[in-house]
Amino acid sequence: MLDKMLKNVYEKSPIVHCITNYVTVNDVANIILASGASPIMADDIGEVSDITSICNSLVINIGTLNTRTIESMIEAGKTSNKLGHPVILDPVGVGASKLRMETTLRLLQEVKFFVIRGNASEIKAIVNENKTTSGVDVSLEDIIDEDNIDKYIDVAKSLSKANDTVVAITGPIDIITNGEKAYLIRNGHESMGKITGTGCMLSGLIGAYIGANPDNILESTTAAVASMGLCGELANHKVVEKGLGTGSLRTYLIDFMSNLDEETLMGGIKIESR
Amino acid sequence: MLDKMLKNVYEKSPIVHCITNYVTVNDVANIILASGASPIMADDIGEVSDITSICNSLVINIGTLNTRTIESMIEAGKTSNKLGHPVILDPVGVGASKLRMETTLRLLQEVKFFVIRGNASEIKAIVNENKTTSGVDVSLEDIIDEDNIDKYIDVAKSLSKANDTVVAITGPIDIITNGEKAYLIRNGHESMGKITGTGCMLSGLIGAYIGANPDNILESTTAAVASMGLCGELANHKVVEKGLGTGSLRTYLIDFMSNLDEETLMGGIKIESR
Amino acid sequence: MLDKMLKNVYEKSPIVHCITNYVTVNDVANIILASGASPIMADDIGEVSDITSICNSLVINIGTLNTRTIESMIEAGKTSNKLGHPVILDPVGVGASKLRMETTLRLLQEVKFFVIRGNASEIKAIVNENKTTSGVDVSLEDIIDEDNIDKYIDVAKSLSKANDTVVAITGPIDIITNGEKAYLIRNGHESMGKITGTGCMLSGLIGAYIGANPDNILESTTAAVASMGLCGELANHKVVEKGLGTGSLRTYLIDFMSNLDEETLMGGIKIESR
Repeated sequence: MLDKMLKNVYEKSPIVHCITNYVTVNDVANIILASGASPIMADDIGEVSDITSICNSLVINIGTLNTRTIESMIEAGKTSNKLGHPVILDPVGVGASKLRMETTLRLLQEVKFFVIRGNASEIKAIVNENKTTSGVDVSLEDIIDEDNIDKYIDVAKSLSKANDTVVAITGPIDIITNGEKAYLIRNGHESMGKITGTGCMLSGLIGAYIGANPDNILESTTAAVASMGLCGELANHKVVEKGLGTGSLRTYLIDFMSNLDEETLMGGIKIESR
Repeated sequence: MLDKMLKNVYEKSPIVHCITNYVTVNDVANIILASGASPIMADDIGEVSDITSICNSLVINIGTLNTRTIESMIEAGKTSNKLGHPVILDPVGVGASKLRMETTLRLLQEVKFFVIRGNASEIKAIVNENKTTSGVDVSLEDIIDEDNIDKYIDVAKSLSKANDTVVAITGPIDIITNGEKAYLIRNGHESMGKITGTGCMLSGLIGAYIGANPDNILESTTAAVASMGLCGELANHKVVEKGLGTGSLRTYLIDFMSNLDEETLMGGIKIESR
Repeated sequence: MLDKMLKNVYEKSPIVHCITNYVTVNDVANIILASGASPIMADDIGEVSDITSICNSLVINIGTLNTRTIESMIEAGKTSNKLGHPVILDPVGVGASKLRMETTLRLLQEVKFFVIRGNASEIKAIVNENKTTSGVDVSLEDIIDEDNIDKYIDVAKSLSKANDTVVAITGPIDIITNGEKAYLIRNGHESMGKITGTGCMLSGLIGAYIGANPDNILESTTAAVASMGLCGELANHKVVEKGLGTGSLRTYLIDFMSNLDEETLMGGIKIESR
């Protein structure tokens, strides 16, 4: 079924509206294009409603949050909700400042999200509604492994149920749940944490997948997470083989995404259902 | 003659002032540098007049338009006009929102542009002054081919005459016209549409070419369009040969631009004059 | 000793708060990650104090300066000063506009900087407090060589003493001084000037090094400058060998940084103490 999710992206070529940070926006656009979808970035309050209306999905990412664009996020979210377009939230570094936490809680209150994706520190911070001391990267204590996986599945399910949304916690093991069912993905490679924006890129990619598969949010999100992990794995393998580094890793990640087909995805995916 | 246009860029090394979007700005800066010119990005109303005064040309790109920078665009445009510096407009996604359309029409009224460059959907939207339903990428129905080329030449000429400016419509076949004469360029490759910002990069590159050749806007714009198409073609060839993808395509595009010389340009250009 | 500076970066993995321009921000984040540190970009007045409090150092870069973020720079700088975090200023294109010069002088008055890094044109402009006619790239007349090196050492020392800060002038020969002692670095390659943001990346990297070595600002800044020069040199060598261009140069620069170890640094560094 996940192969169908991928196929729908390049066949339907959804337009994905992103209100995102200026650090990783270029990579987000390029990975959305690599998947076969079409990105449009627009954040001015004067146009976000117009823009989101011609799109198939909306990605809200709070990295480099600023007061000018918070209202744009709310307005775009509400317009998307009215139109029934799937919306995803990426609460980048939500534990790092009061502004990010308050904005995230306000977004969760005023906009209905179809997916929330973050690393373990971010998702934990939202569940606990507290300011942590970590930055935008996951805290060492929050790295998901086989020993603590059950705890994080519970965290994900709890946030999922509280907000009636799919939740994806990504890390060494990825968890995707709709509150009942959970998928675990064991693709990816730790070197992906050494390039900026792999999380943002994944959220953009989920935007493409849910835009093309609006009736299947859990499975399309899972397919996006698996695609990203697999492409990161393949890219890392190539980098190691050639003795290169993280600059090339970023390039190859997008290369593999642009060439990803159903067969490669289904052959490489390491998925478990719980 | 087009080889002379290219040579002037790296010999005169013009400074190009860009007020552009935050999605593709890094690639725009890198391709301007690759051509031998020097970019400077500045968009605050408090400095755009100062900045544009020390530059040789100005690029205005309305991707990620915001109300803060619209006034900066107008002011920089007027200062450039007073100084006689060539100015180019890239109306990214002009049909996607009322804000983009109104801003574009206001810019056309208050600033004299030397070049307008867009894809077929964008140029058509301006000519018809209407909101379309496409995003920042060209609509499928608007892809220029041998059958509809005459229609698009007319569209380009009509916008050119109405605004006394060179118009470049870029796509599978590129059209560059001053309202009378038209050049068609058949370089490039469709894979270029799979990386974000090839249009923005080209507009930045035109900024470099017209900055170095202010007395020859039609031919220098044509040379920039041909350079971009040819480098995209060469980059695509290398990507296919090596079995890579769109991440590498972007890298090689800039590689080829940084190595482009007169001989390669004149040997690879597929140009027709009408 | 410089090898210890490098080792501390990947062992301590400091968090580096950057308020920087949107042109090169992605490369800045990636080179900080490549060094083993962790970047966080945040520029809204509502969160900069929170953010900088959880970081180990602060980078202020005035490229694409805008009135919204000037106050954020001041506030973040003051908070960092209170906490004793090292702060670095990158006065990008300070001579290019009145706004940049006035902001730089205000920053120097209100914030205590531990390091100021710029090209020769920028540092000269600050010392003379005047508007020049160059853009963000160094003026031809300001390129440091063996003949004028003594003059630029004096310029660097004078700015260093006036502001009680380490000053780094980077170019063909780099000068790093605390007003008394000066290190000269002869690594790097002129092709680095053909990719945007090598200066910004270096300032980000210095942020990582001084964040990991707050008690040793002069030597850690020198180690960062040498690392950048050496990686640029190695990247350029590889590009020439493979017949590539500036797109690949940028990728390889980050590749080499992500693989840089103490042995490579100490084996490749060309340093002189004055």
